[in-house]
Formats: sequence, structure tokens, C-alpha cells
Amino acid sequence: MKQLILVRHGQSAWNLENRFTGWADIDLTPTGVEQSQRAGQLLRDAGYDFDIAYTSVLKRAIRTLWNIQDAMDLMWVPVVHSWRLNERHYGALTGLNKAETAAKFGDEQVHIWRRSYAIAPPPLSPEQRAELAKDPRYTKLTHEDIPQGECLKDTVGRVLPLWNESIAPALKLGKRVILVAHGNSIRALMKHIDQVSDEAIMEVNVPNGNPLIYELDDELRPIQHFYLEAK
Amino acid sequence: MKQLILVRHGQSAWNLENRFTGWADIDLTPTGVEQSQRAGQLLRDAGYDFDIAYTSVLKRAIRTLWNIQDAMDLMWVPVVHSWRLNERHYGALTGLNKAETAAKFGDEQVHIWRRSYAIAPPPLSPEQRAELAKDPRYTKLTHEDIPQGECLKDTVGRVLPLWNESIAPALKLGKRVILVAHGNSIRALMKHIDQVSDEAIMEVNVPNGNPLIYELDDELRPIQHFYLEAK
Repeated sequence: MKQLILVRHGQSAWNLENRFTGWADIDLTPTGVEQSQRAGQLLRDAGYDFDIAYTSVLKRAIRTLWNIQDAMDLMWVPVVHSWRLNERHYGALTGLNKAETAAKFGDEQVHIWRRSYAIAPPPLSPEQRAELAKDPRYTKLTHEDIPQGECLKDTVGRVLPLWNESIAPALKLGKRVILVAHGNSIRALMKHIDQVSDEAIMEVNVPNGNPLIYELDDELRPIQHFYLEAK
Repeated sequence: MKQLILVRHGQSAWNLENRFTGWADIDLTPTGVEQSQRAGQLLRDAGYDFDIAYTSVLKRAIRTLWNIQDAMDLMWVPVVHSWRLNERHYGALTGLNKAETAAKFGDEQVHIWRRSYAIAPPPLSPEQRAELAKDPRYTKLTHEDIPQGECLKDTVGRVLPLWNESIAPALKLGKRVILVAHGNSIRALMKHIDQVSDEAIMEVNVPNGNPLIYELDDELRPIQHFYLEAK
């Protein structure tokens, strides 16, 4: 049996303010820090262990992973940081809260963006996209890989190469994997592993800082998955 | 010009108690945490940056690196964890403080161990060594690579393969490197880079949490090195 632990980062400052965050590098709140420490304690107390960790290049995910590693006394385990695990890029919505978005684009349009698998948000301006490409985390990306605003389908498209080329091979080698990422990059993986429909995946919500345990067979087909709860 | 930043971890609980630590995985004290945060602030304020980080598999070094990454907003930079950067293994002296060591082995013998480049401390028992080999951090090591107690010469011998196979090639590719490790694994690198004699290297002391900047030429010969001081 193969073990994959998925954890969405703890609460961030913009989760709290209900802003579209995406690739904005917003840190955890004190509550988010506590959630991440608790996630590590839950995993430790339930006897989990891991051989390799994957995370995004955004600090709310990395800090969540660090706190989990610290609680589990696994600070030395190798970590792969990949932009492919970043949150969905919200394009021109980035930084807006719910009220601002509704005022600017109308409730109906916001509802469409929230519920559509394949309709992207309004794009970044070319200048904003060029600015993003200059970030040292993203200078090695091709022009096409620099997002201007993603629908969940786009996020799935850029998460899967990492799954196919690195995470799945590691699991097949018997490595126990933890992956600490974001609501939509985790949804992308769940959609792939559980073969969830385009419609159904939009209804899946991943809570902050709650370890989601996947047990997979040798072909990485799902046996079961469950959230780890405090006893 | 190539840039290599060396940082010895902040003060650990056993630094404070003056105990031989070696491969014992002792955490930072609150002072050690402050030293590591200050190291990150010093590097940030002086405009330093790095593309890759190297550290040991011991938490006092890893936490020091984390605090530096945090202060410099470089949490996403790839990190290589290697047992080859661990502290010198003190064999049967591990855990003893100065007074206990002197009482057990005599002042003169302790002085010899402290000052000798090539005289190893009393070895671990075979049982202790077998126990060490079971630690998940060390299960991939060959039997010979599991130390029973090292002199500095032994430490140099196991640090250099990492330098030759990974750190030096990264520097030659133009990567800016930070390396957060231990008094003796840093001495081992300084001995190699600066071609310090066996006698002179025993007199070199590396303070906790004070960034040591090496500027190297294209062949990795030293141009200069200096400690970063607060302005």
C-alpha cells in the first residue's frame, strides 16, 4: 500500500480577509500557524512518517510544511519545492475580496468563475505578467508556463506533469510522500487520483491544515482517503 | 566572482552546557534562535542572496537555515540536506561535559583530543554504532561511513566528497551558495579552500550564527573571506 498525505496550508492573512490570493505570497496568520502545528501533532500521534515532501514556492505552504516537519521531528527529510504546486492563479482578481469583486464584475460573473471548471478569471495585464516572470522563483519557466489567470482546468494541466514525472514515481518506489500545497493544487491531484468529474470537483473543499490521507494500490489507484481527526 | 556563505548554527542547548554534541540532535536555545534570525537580517540588510542551500541532517543547523531563509524571504530556495555536513562525531565523548570528560579521561588526554588533527576520540561501542546505523537518516550509509568517533581529519574526509561532487560544481555554475553547518564541518571546508595546515586549523574557531562570506575566483581559489558584522 502506498501512502500519500495531502495538507492544505493553514489559514493565511488573505484567507481571513476573504481575498483571492493565488500566487500572491501571503503568510500564515497565528491561527494558521496553530493549524499547521496541530497537523504535525496529529500525524505524529497517529504514527505517520514520510520519506519525501513536496510543496509549492509560496511561504504559506512552506511554513505549514516546516511546522509539520518540526512537530514530527522530520526536519531533515528532503523537500521538493515546485511552482507547479502553487495555488490557482486568479489573474486580475488577485488581491480583491468578495465584495470588491462583486462590485467590479457583478455577482453573477463571480458565481460563474467560482463554479466553472474551464472559465478563466480576467487576465493579468501584459505588464503584470512580465513582472511575474522576473520573480526569481519563475525565471526558468517558459513564457507559456507563466500564467495570466487560471481556471481549475489550467491548474490541473500544470500540476499533472509534476505528478507524472516525480510524485508518482516516488510513490511507486515505495516512498511515503507528504504534499503541502493549496486548495486548488490539491483539488487538481484529487481529481486525477479519484477521477472526479469536472462538475463534481468544483464542489470539493479542502479545509486548512487538516491532513488528508490517501491509501493507494501499487498502480496508484485509490483504496481509500480520509481526513485525520483528533482522537 | 563566486559567493559562498558559511554559517555555523546558533547556540544549542549543549553548547550552553559545554557538552560534546557531535551527531546528537540537540536543538537551539532561545539565544541560538535569536542568533540565527540576526544572521538572516544581517545577510538581508547587506544585500546578499543565494540560489541553493546546503545543511546537515541535524536540527540545530536546519533550524538556523530556516530562520535565515525566513528573514531573507527565501523560504522557497532548494535545500540539500547531507549527513556529510554533520558535526564531527565525538564517539564515546558524546554527551559528556568538560568536567565529566576530564574526570573520566584526565586533563592531558582531553587536551590531546582537542588539539590533535588526527587522533580520534574513544569509539562508540559496536552496539551504539549499530543503533546509529538504524537511524532513518543514516540507513543508506555504508558500514564504513557510519562513524564510531572522528578526529577532524576524518571529518574532512567525509565532507570533501560533498564539496567535490555537489557544492563546487554548483559554485562553478554560478550558483550563490549558503551552507549552514557545524564548527568542524565548516573548519573542514575552510581547511580545504584556504589550504590551512593540520596544526593551524585546530586554532580556527567559528562563532555561532555569524555569517562568514567567502569570495572565490572561477577556480574556487579564495579571494577573501570575512565575517559579516552589524553596521
